[in-house]
Amino acid sequence: MTIRVGVIGTGQIGTDHATKLANAISGSAVSAVTDVNRARAEEVAAGLGGARVADDALALIRSDDVDAVLITSIAETHAAFTLACIEAGKPVLCEKPLAPTSRECEQVLAAEVAFGRRLVIVGYMRRYDPGYQSVKATLEGGTIGEPLMLHSIHRNPTVPETYTSSMTMTDSMIHEVDISRWLLGEEITAVQVIPPKRTPLAFDHLQDPQFAIFTTESGILSTVEFFANSQYGYDVRCELVGTLGTAALPNPVTASASAAGVEVHPIPPSWRVRFGQAYTAELQAWIAGLARGEAVGPSAWEGYAATKVVEAGVEAISTGQRMTIEYIEKPALYR
Amino acid sequence: MTIRVGVIGTGQIGTDHATKLANAISGSAVSAVTDVNRARAEEVAAGLGGARVADDALALIRSDDVDAVLITSIAETHAAFTLACIEAGKPVLCEKPLAPTSRECEQVLAAEVAFGRRLVIVGYMRRYDPGYQSVKATLEGGTIGEPLMLHSIHRNPTVPETYTSSMTMTDSMIHEVDISRWLLGEEITAVQVIPPKRTPLAFDHLQDPQFAIFTTESGILSTVEFFANSQYGYDVRCELVGTLGTAALPNPVTASASAAGVEVHPIPPSWRVRFGQAYTAELQAWIAGLARGEAVGPSAWEGYAATKVVEAGVEAISTGQRMTIEYIEKPALYR
Amino acid sequence: MTIRVGVIGTGQIGTDHATKLANAISGSAVSAVTDVNRARAEEVAAGLGGARVADDALALIRSDDVDAVLITSIAETHAAFTLACIEAGKPVLCEKPLAPTSRECEQVLAAEVAFGRRLVIVGYMRRYDPGYQSVKATLEGGTIGEPLMLHSIHRNPTVPETYTSSMTMTDSMIHEVDISRWLLGEEITAVQVIPPKRTPLAFDHLQDPQFAIFTTESGILSTVEFFANSQYGYDVRCELVGTLGTAALPNPVTASASAAGVEVHPIPPSWRVRFGQAYTAELQAWIAGLARGEAVGPSAWEGYAATKVVEAGVEAISTGQRMTIEYIEKPALYR
Amino acid sequence: MTIRVGVIGTGQIGTDHATKLANAISGSAVSAVTDVNRARAEEVAAGLGGARVADDALALIRSDDVDAVLITSIAETHAAFTLACIEAGKPVLCEKPLAPTSRECEQVLAAEVAFGRRLVIVGYMRRYDPGYQSVKATLEGGTIGEPLMLHSIHRNPTVPETYTSSMTMTDSMIHEVDISRWLLGEEITAVQVIPPKRTPLAFDHLQDPQFAIFTTESGILSTVEFFANSQYGYDVRCELVGTLGTAALPNPVTASASAAGVEVHPIPPSWRVRFGQAYTAELQAWIAGLARGEAVGPSAWEGYAATKVVEAGVEAISTGQRMTIEYIEKPALYR
Repeated sequence: MTIRVGVIGTGQIGTDHATKLANAISGSAVSAVTDVNRARAEEVAAGLGGARVADDALALIRSDDVDAVLITSIAETHAAFTLACIEAGKPVLCEKPLAPTSRECEQVLAAEVAFGRRLVIVGYMRRYDPGYQSVKATLEGGTIGEPLMLHSIHRNPTVPETYTSSMTMTDSMIHEVDISRWLLGEEITAVQVIPPKRTPLAFDHLQDPQFAIFTTESGILSTVEFFANSQYGYDVRCELVGTLGTAALPNPVTASASAAGVEVHPIPPSWRVRFGQAYTAELQAWIAGLARGEAVGPSAWEGYAATKVVEAGVEAISTGQRMTIEYIEKPALYR
Repeated sequence: MTIRVGVIGTGQIGTDHATKLANAISGSAVSAVTDVNRARAEEVAAGLGGARVADDALALIRSDDVDAVLITSIAETHAAFTLACIEAGKPVLCEKPLAPTSRECEQVLAAEVAFGRRLVIVGYMRRYDPGYQSVKATLEGGTIGEPLMLHSIHRNPTVPETYTSSMTMTDSMIHEVDISRWLLGEEITAVQVIPPKRTPLAFDHLQDPQFAIFTTESGILSTVEFFANSQYGYDVRCELVGTLGTAALPNPVTASASAAGVEVHPIPPSWRVRFGQAYTAELQAWIAGLARGEAVGPSAWEGYAATKVVEAGVEAISTGQRMTIEYIEKPALYR
Repeated sequence: MTIRVGVIGTGQIGTDHATKLANAISGSAVSAVTDVNRARAEEVAAGLGGARVADDALALIRSDDVDAVLITSIAETHAAFTLACIEAGKPVLCEKPLAPTSRECEQVLAAEVAFGRRLVIVGYMRRYDPGYQSVKATLEGGTIGEPLMLHSIHRNPTVPETYTSSMTMTDSMIHEVDISRWLLGEEITAVQVIPPKRTPLAFDHLQDPQFAIFTTESGILSTVEFFANSQYGYDVRCELVGTLGTAALPNPVTASASAAGVEVHPIPPSWRVRFGQAYTAELQAWIAGLARGEAVGPSAWEGYAATKVVEAGVEAISTGQRMTIEYIEKPALYR
Repeated sequence: MTIRVGVIGTGQIGTDHATKLANAISGSAVSAVTDVNRARAEEVAAGLGGARVADDALALIRSDDVDAVLITSIAETHAAFTLACIEAGKPVLCEKPLAPTSRECEQVLAAEVAFGRRLVIVGYMRRYDPGYQSVKATLEGGTIGEPLMLHSIHRNPTVPETYTSSMTMTDSMIHEVDISRWLLGEEITAVQVIPPKRTPLAFDHLQDPQFAIFTTESGILSTVEFFANSQYGYDVRCELVGTLGTAALPNPVTASASAAGVEVHPIPPSWRVRFGQAYTAELQAWIAGLARGEAVGPSAWEGYAATKVVEAGVEAISTGQRMTIEYIEKPALYR
């Protein structure tokens, strides 16, 4: 029994995901794709052996040959397409964010609660990284006691001119927001952003790097350094500090070389390399879950909470103030 | 188009592979299984959703619902079943070794050459490990110059009483034999085995640890320490020494923890954990190749060469002498 | 020509230093010691082979058999004894801080400027650690571009009940203040302290851990996590982030062990172990400098600047506000 | 009370040691130096502040202003000068080897036994390296059980044309011989040398790299890869394998840098950098011991045993055979 997935949005990440669903995931096929750029959609479909091109997202969602939907179009479309999936009663994996605004996220929550069963998964793939999973397992194993602080580093080689200061929060640190919530098991209730000295190697409009401090319900600090134009690689690490010890996520090491006076360990060049396996694992878990009739992955509530925090984070960037965050009551569906 | 695989032998590794072919590999299903222990075969089949139990290996190989065969039965059966697959014109992935004797391997080579097209793949999964691939890429990239020596460590926590001194060569160091050939691109022409001090934690009949020195055509030394009862973990590492530098395979590092005065990195507990992803990658590459009509993976020649070396290695263990190795001429099919 | 050092204060660090001056430093001897606890001073003197016990600090400073003075008494006495050394025209190594208040530091600066030549060294020993020196060398070598941020971790196993929240700044983070100034080559102009969740393993009066953000003249952020009761070891690390890359100070690694499923690296148990060699190097550099007639080590200005920052840091702790810092003009003697 | 040391031989290592004895060791001064190249001796003496130049080694040894002797002249002179020191009743630190031949070493043993008290120390400085000491402590702590194998790597960037194949054993692997004996607490009773493929980057007369297997009394294997022209750095590591685990000596890590896609750890450029502190510690231990009237450091017996092994090792190189080693009875003085 093959799950026939329809893919909305065939940009880089959509194409990556579609290719995996067609060639690297057990139990799935891509039956249809769509994109605002139809030529691009046709090119991608041709490489997937058998996928057709749907006229638009809503047509794709309603198609009989689509059992489940993957949304990888631009963030502004996520809520509308997710709502359409719920309306059609179809499982959906929406790339992060669930929506750019918490108001839209709340609409999704309301619709899914009204539908009565979980259909929506949000693509926070880092939860599928063996390193992050090991950090979580170490915490849960008790070795390091109760968590007090989490320090994260998130560095990217370069970003294009279209990348703005708000996106440091909405596109990048949103991953640390999700990981903080997932590792610490608490909601984030405040955020402060303190701008470090700017690199001259960023476009003028961009504050880069960025330093944010998130605080959870019980007072745990989650500090995040994000650097969009670090030049040297894609470097994602963290250290979780507990009352008895710490758990750390280094760069994965698989091999090294010694030559010309130095021992060298490669740093991943991009998020595609660093988290490629995590994306695969996320998709495989989703498809395997669907085969069993379950919604496996971060829920719409997780999507809402992350968006809620980054909304406050964007305000914190522009005001320079510490912003507090208040959530709607968590529906029973997500407890 | 799903490749329907028949699995011969449902012991631990057969079950692992069958489960992956059914649940984790894109493009494959398990249509039939068989085992000398029929009850075991039925139990495994039940967990694979739809696989039937064939009466015996030959019946399975000839079945119309079997497009390709996976041989994971005991080594003594490998050649016979592989020959039957060639006779049936069906692609086959034979777990290592291709056969316990080089004479049988030569029969497989002759049969495949007569058939005129490659059908046989031998399961040297380490070639699919990202660490070993990185070592090879470093060598090929030129950074470390021309290879002069390869030092390998291969340690296992414990082995059962059935494990013999010959098996240090035929079951364990055979992996380093294959990796040496693959990394160095040369055949091994001599082998010497020098017994270290024995651990008191092995059964009396077993020489453990073992130290072997393989020499290639051009004189490269490949030293291998194998330790079956190292107690502490499954620890596989190597260092390739070139004229300008070295490339090393450490234990993979994904996370660490600091507590009680020490920083701790986990060591894999078993080959299943250490090379689980390599097995998955091997199977996926095989299935994807079949879908394209190609035989992707180590060939029967690679299987023959490894068996030829370990045959000499067993003699080296029993005689204490340095044994030299001469190969049949390599058929054009494998060049 | 042996430099005869008089040691004021024979607590743990004074005894350590005196023992080194007597037994591990070339060119020095300890001629006299003194302590408010005379019995203790006599015990220490007896172990130094030839040192006499002076009646009090001022008598020691003025003694003819004392060529240079080491001050390791409590912080409150540092300024007075340092001033007495200047008055006596004798070189002095004052353990950090130069004084608990910037006002006293300014008096020392004024006295030394009036004397007209540098006599005073302040014991910021981390500058003599090979790891920190390597980070500085990497920065100066240009590989990582211009500095933008410095992240420091400073963890201690446990502290006694006498240790207060102010001391997180005045006794502990003062080391990161000095290292930040030294690495970045800029004065710190602001400090903010954000309290993380408290460990239940500290005494009730102590905010532990502590998180501070220092800002330099040009806007570089220097973040410091200090954790007095981390339980697991003495763990001091940092990462300096530049426009092109980063330089990191890990825990020094000299050996490792693998057993029972894990690879283990020891973490230093205490600052005495971690920085023992740095203290030795600091003392040797001081003594060798004196033999050449030079004052080698961090100057009184460095002592003043560090105290100035931690004074603001203590205010930042109590007010919860970001405090700015203004310095007196730097006298020509220190440029 | 300053120990006045006379230094015989002012080549690179003699100058290094003399400079340390004059400037970095507590309790010592250099009173006299001598060298076959008198001009060189005068130059070195001038830099030591107060050392005079003696006419020759024997005159130096007998001088009243020489309390102890450091022999850093060429190996062929070691035994004669050491014997002269014993005759003069003066403590002596002889750089390794004690002598190039075991016959000469036996003469030194006989003379020292006749003298009745230990005067001779041999300069196996690696025993003072914190990494090797940590490996030994791990073994003695019991964590890794009983030793079964020791694997050592010893790589050097390049050697001059004067360096011969025998010197791989007598000058280089002699360090691993000493370390094996010291770590394992057993004498080496056999040695076999197996030549790997030669690097084209060595002079024609030199077999490089070299691979040796030493066997101890109880059957422990100590394998050594030595590579004189590894090009990339001075890389000394080992792994001691016990019945329950392993203890490893990595390259010391004090700092790292990330830039241009890689994380980089420096490898020491030379033995002077790698073991500089070990040499200092060796000298300080020797001098401190002399001040207490003790001979602290590897004894003449250790010097004899190492020379005995490398003598067999040189034969093993030229014959290609496994050579066995028999020792004279160990005099009571060395037990």
